[in-house]
Amino acid sequence: MTNQRNNAIEFSHQNRQKFLDKLIDYVKFPTVSADSSHKPDMREAAKWTTERLQEIGMENIRIYETGGHPLVYADHLHAGSDKPTVVIYGHYDVQPPDPLELWKTGPFEPEIRDNKLYGRGASDMKGQIIASMAAVESILSAGELPINIKWMIEGEEEIGSANLPNFIENNKELYTCDFVLNPDGGILGEDIPAIPYALRGIVGFEIVLKGPAQDLHSGVFGGAILNPANELARLVAGMHDENGRITLPGFYDQVQELSTEEREEMAKLPMDEAYFKKLSGAPEIVGGEKDYTPVERASARPTLDVNGIFSGYTGEGMKTVLPTYATAKITCRLVPNQEPKAILAGIEKYIKENVSPGVTWEMGSKDGAPASITPIDSKEVGALFDALKLVWGKEPNFFRIGGSVPIVAEMERILGAVSVLTGFGLPDDNIHSPNEKLSLETWYRGIDTLIHFLYNL
Amino acid sequence: MTNQRNNAIEFSHQNRQKFLDKLIDYVKFPTVSADSSHKPDMREAAKWTTERLQEIGMENIRIYETGGHPLVYADHLHAGSDKPTVVIYGHYDVQPPDPLELWKTGPFEPEIRDNKLYGRGASDMKGQIIASMAAVESILSAGELPINIKWMIEGEEEIGSANLPNFIENNKELYTCDFVLNPDGGILGEDIPAIPYALRGIVGFEIVLKGPAQDLHSGVFGGAILNPANELARLVAGMHDENGRITLPGFYDQVQELSTEEREEMAKLPMDEAYFKKLSGAPEIVGGEKDYTPVERASARPTLDVNGIFSGYTGEGMKTVLPTYATAKITCRLVPNQEPKAILAGIEKYIKENVSPGVTWEMGSKDGAPASITPIDSKEVGALFDALKLVWGKEPNFFRIGGSVPIVAEMERILGAVSVLTGFGLPDDNIHSPNEKLSLETWYRGIDTLIHFLYNL
Repeated sequence: MTNQRNNAIEFSHQNRQKFLDKLIDYVKFPTVSADSSHKPDMREAAKWTTERLQEIGMENIRIYETGGHPLVYADHLHAGSDKPTVVIYGHYDVQPPDPLELWKTGPFEPEIRDNKLYGRGASDMKGQIIASMAAVESILSAGELPINIKWMIEGEEEIGSANLPNFIENNKELYTCDFVLNPDGGILGEDIPAIPYALRGIVGFEIVLKGPAQDLHSGVFGGAILNPANELARLVAGMHDENGRITLPGFYDQVQELSTEEREEMAKLPMDEAYFKKLSGAPEIVGGEKDYTPVERASARPTLDVNGIFSGYTGEGMKTVLPTYATAKITCRLVPNQEPKAILAGIEKYIKENVSPGVTWEMGSKDGAPASITPIDSKEVGALFDALKLVWGKEPNFFRIGGSVPIVAEMERILGAVSVLTGFGLPDDNIHSPNEKLSLETWYRGIDTLIHFLYNL
Repeated sequence: MTNQRNNAIEFSHQNRQKFLDKLIDYVKFPTVSADSSHKPDMREAAKWTTERLQEIGMENIRIYETGGHPLVYADHLHAGSDKPTVVIYGHYDVQPPDPLELWKTGPFEPEIRDNKLYGRGASDMKGQIIASMAAVESILSAGELPINIKWMIEGEEEIGSANLPNFIENNKELYTCDFVLNPDGGILGEDIPAIPYALRGIVGFEIVLKGPAQDLHSGVFGGAILNPANELARLVAGMHDENGRITLPGFYDQVQELSTEEREEMAKLPMDEAYFKKLSGAPEIVGGEKDYTPVERASARPTLDVNGIFSGYTGEGMKTVLPTYATAKITCRLVPNQEPKAILAGIEKYIKENVSPGVTWEMGSKDGAPASITPIDSKEVGALFDALKLVWGKEPNFFRIGGSVPIVAEMERILGAVSVLTGFGLPDDNIHSPNEKLSLETWYRGIDTLIHFLYNL
């Protein structure tokens, strides 16, 4: 096998330009799943995905309808039934690119600057899909695949993968597997190999407070009438206490607390205040629960963040109105054992108990998804650990991801399959922000890592 | 004089259609002072104003440049130096008509429905200007004017009369007078004649809190970084306590408290909770200071209202961002003796002492204007009282206006002249809202009232 492995690595090194060209083609598709005007682009990108799977030698390639954007399936099942079967997960959809004016070059006109590829989806996660395909292609160029592979490349991750659980439920046999490889994670720095082993869950909700029948003159009515914008500020402010703890009823009841050992491990991560300050541009790294470090707060503790708030007149100058309504969009990130439904019930209870009768209220919500955590002592995580160590020449760190990939928990629930998380994006890749980028140096190392990982299994 | 008075009233009754036609012409000018694209309309409306003053027999008619929108002057000074001189104030500018889609007919296409004239400015205050001119025209048709008159018709009231104080300072002699008649007030109902004797002052400010350098992924940074929208909600919420009192340092220090007698008088006004509920459409009349009635809170107590708030993503669906900034526009209505500068200093102190170092902040503000209060035992107020009583057949109520007409305090300061407030708009005229209207029945009574008032002086 050593000879094959060397040949596969050699092939991947000689084909870097080809892999990069493929990635550039892929990023050019404006696959914004949130925007229905991009439906045709989604379908074209799915078709392109099948063509690429064909090129690297996959079989049974199909585009499945899901009720939303299409899903791409393919497999290669010739390693034998004594070998493990992995589902390689990916999503070809991307976040909306707004605000466009902050991009140096067009989000869907990929450009290389300083050995980084700029474009929406370059890091999250078209780069990771192309890297996985490159690894499989390299191995097949050198011989047989050491394991059985199934591909699950969906188009709705950035809008919550609403149709995917249902699709998997209805196609359990198609996706029977031993584990899932999910390369939608990342590492901690160009020279800091790392393995993510947990994801936060998420619930989102929107509150609308309605007061007077229309915007009123703040002189004529101010003081007599409850102002919905002031009331919304009061309700939102009341969701945290002075120590940054979330006050919603039952919010912390199910929280899996961090062990002393895990806190010690997290303290060793290269993610201190200076790191967060540099990465965010915030003037000081404060906020969140007082008793936890920034990295703990950002990945292993639950949160409540306003994503958007609006009321009244927000144009130029002043308009002395008492607004007719006020609205806020809020999301909570959840940690292992918190149940989305229970959290949403707590929010509703809080509003019901605290809102003034001076407004009527509505709450729209999305169930979201629970957090997930992967045992780090499994054979598969060991294979990834060894691969990263070999390519980077140092032992990788273990870390938790603060973001949410709801499908990870869903696949565990439906398929009984644990996900191994990896990926070769960096914390400053600006995913979900303007000027998303991918470090090509790190990406090439990532392809090598995936080759070793598959051989290590 | 009785004969002349009767003839003047008779003239006004016979010319109601002409007065109405003039008002319709006047409302057709889209004199939105806040919108610079309406500059030509402002100038045309000023010119039309001079033509109307010419028609009713005024002299020395001039359009003055103020640095902003032009001001119209005219006079009629033949009553003799032993007779009082009144400055009749008016503004030909109007509030922006947005949101346009809520108007049944165009804001600048005046239409009569159910004996009410609909159109922006019909009530606030083109109707009041035309009524004042109609009264003067009617008296002159019957003989001589019993007093000397100067007109001051400005074009910037709805944007704060920024240039007017300076203009008056530089033209003190032009506006030497014994008192000011300001018909920018109103009465309390079709059958409730009333005299406004106080106006609230105002200060406005805008807060911007800046956090991270750009919108961030709320999964990657949520919990570690202070969220500017959450922080803004906390700061805004902290501006009131649980009893609806404003917490800003020194806010109540200068407040002129209501006397027991005045509270008793206010309790007699037909402005109870049901009145405010019907007028506002709010589900319950709560909010504001707990120890005061709605009418006290809306006219004789200071307030702090969010006029607009914005942060993050407010479009369709969810976007899980941690916003880069959050902003709020806020105005305080002030009561007699509160100093705008001191109030703004208190706000700045509050923010400085309470804002987290996790954001940087900026505060833009407008000085605004102090409140004003008119002695109700003067000869001029007596003349108005008698005129209202005669026309309506019942004694008028005295009441305070919750809104602000900054120029009233300014004229007292610069000219040493107290303003007599009147006007024939109604509380449900939707001034500053869609479908502004003017009750024509009440308006005709108003013209009669102004004729009697001028004879009574």
